[in-house]
Amino acid sequence: MSSQKKAPEVILGIDPGLADCGWGVIKKISPNNSRLQRRDAFEVVDFGSIKTSSKDPLTIRLSELYEKMQGVIQKHKPDAVGIEELFFGKNAKTAMMVGEARGVVMLLLAQNSFSPVEFKPAEIKLALSGYGNADKKQMQEMVKLFLKLEKIPKSDDAADALAVAITLAVTKRFRNIT
Amino acid sequence: MSSQKKAPEVILGIDPGLADCGWGVIKKISPNNSRLQRRDAFEVVDFGSIKTSSKDPLTIRLSELYEKMQGVIQKHKPDAVGIEELFFGKNAKTAMMVGEARGVVMLLLAQNSFSPVEFKPAEIKLALSGYGNADKKQMQEMVKLFLKLEKIPKSDDAADALAVAITLAVTKRFRNIT
Repeated sequence: MSSQKKAPEVILGIDPGLADCGWGVIKKISPNNSRLQRRDAFEVVDFGSIKTSSKDPLTIRLSELYEKMQGVIQKHKPDAVGIEELFFGKNAKTAMMVGEARGVVMLLLAQNSFSPVEFKPAEIKLALSGYGNADKKQMQEMVKLFLKLEKIPKSDDAADALAVAITLAVTKRFRNIT
Repeated sequence: MSSQKKAPEVILGIDPGLADCGWGVIKKISPNNSRLQRRDAFEVVDFGSIKTSSKDPLTIRLSELYEKMQGVIQKHKPDAVGIEELFFGKNAKTAMMVGEARGVVMLLLAQNSFSPVEFKPAEIKLALSGYGNADKKQMQEMVKLFLKLEKIPKSDDAADALAVAITLAVTKRFRNIT
């Protein structure tokens, strides 16, 4: 027998944001269903987007994000968590707000004993499409194909979060995380 | 009697950061000592800087910041909290890290039922020196004068945090916060 750790079964992907924080949960399909496949297959469990209102104070928004994301973790009990690194193409104010939300999510993950794997946008694109500059539409199509969804998730942030979860699923790195 | 709320006695100022998060606590001097003064006088209680190592994962650093800042709050039980808004003059990576640390501190303040008052760097400079473009050295001298310190705090971040606390003390806004 191999001494390799058991691969995680349930993976949570997070696309951090203050106004919309996307999350997506996928799980490994049981061996009975995937024995004909050469690599592990995954299916979607659930996904969504945690929204907070810009009319509320930052403290309230961050508390809401913290509590709702805690609810997602408690409900789905992931074995491993992937999170997108910040993308700096937008303006500094947007980057700041994403940073504040991301800090809160990272703290929550630490408090739940997770060591999240961080992925740059180009790594996610490469993992899903084999092309580091794939556009949003191509990425969403790959998410749909990989998880055999009937349609692309309505929320861009949820779709991005599923892409993060898939990236963790298909990279070897996750095998060392439990 | 006025219906105005009692002014806070103990004020915590925070200069958020991931590598160094400055904090400073000041308190109103009791009336016996300040009756000759035309406006409230404040004295320093304590100050410091919470440092985290860039060698540690972000989750560990944010957890350490959260726990140590919680210790500061529990020890000094401030009546009001001021926090500096992000300054974007530096590069995006620095802004991201400050954002992550600031998000964690804001969450902690919310969890402790504070509604922190946020100040832009120019507001802090204006409050202390009457000049929105005062340089760091001038600001530190004003902190020393205002709090009758023997010398400028060694940590720039702690000095900045004391400047935030003073800004909250001298603006009228804090009177509505308890």
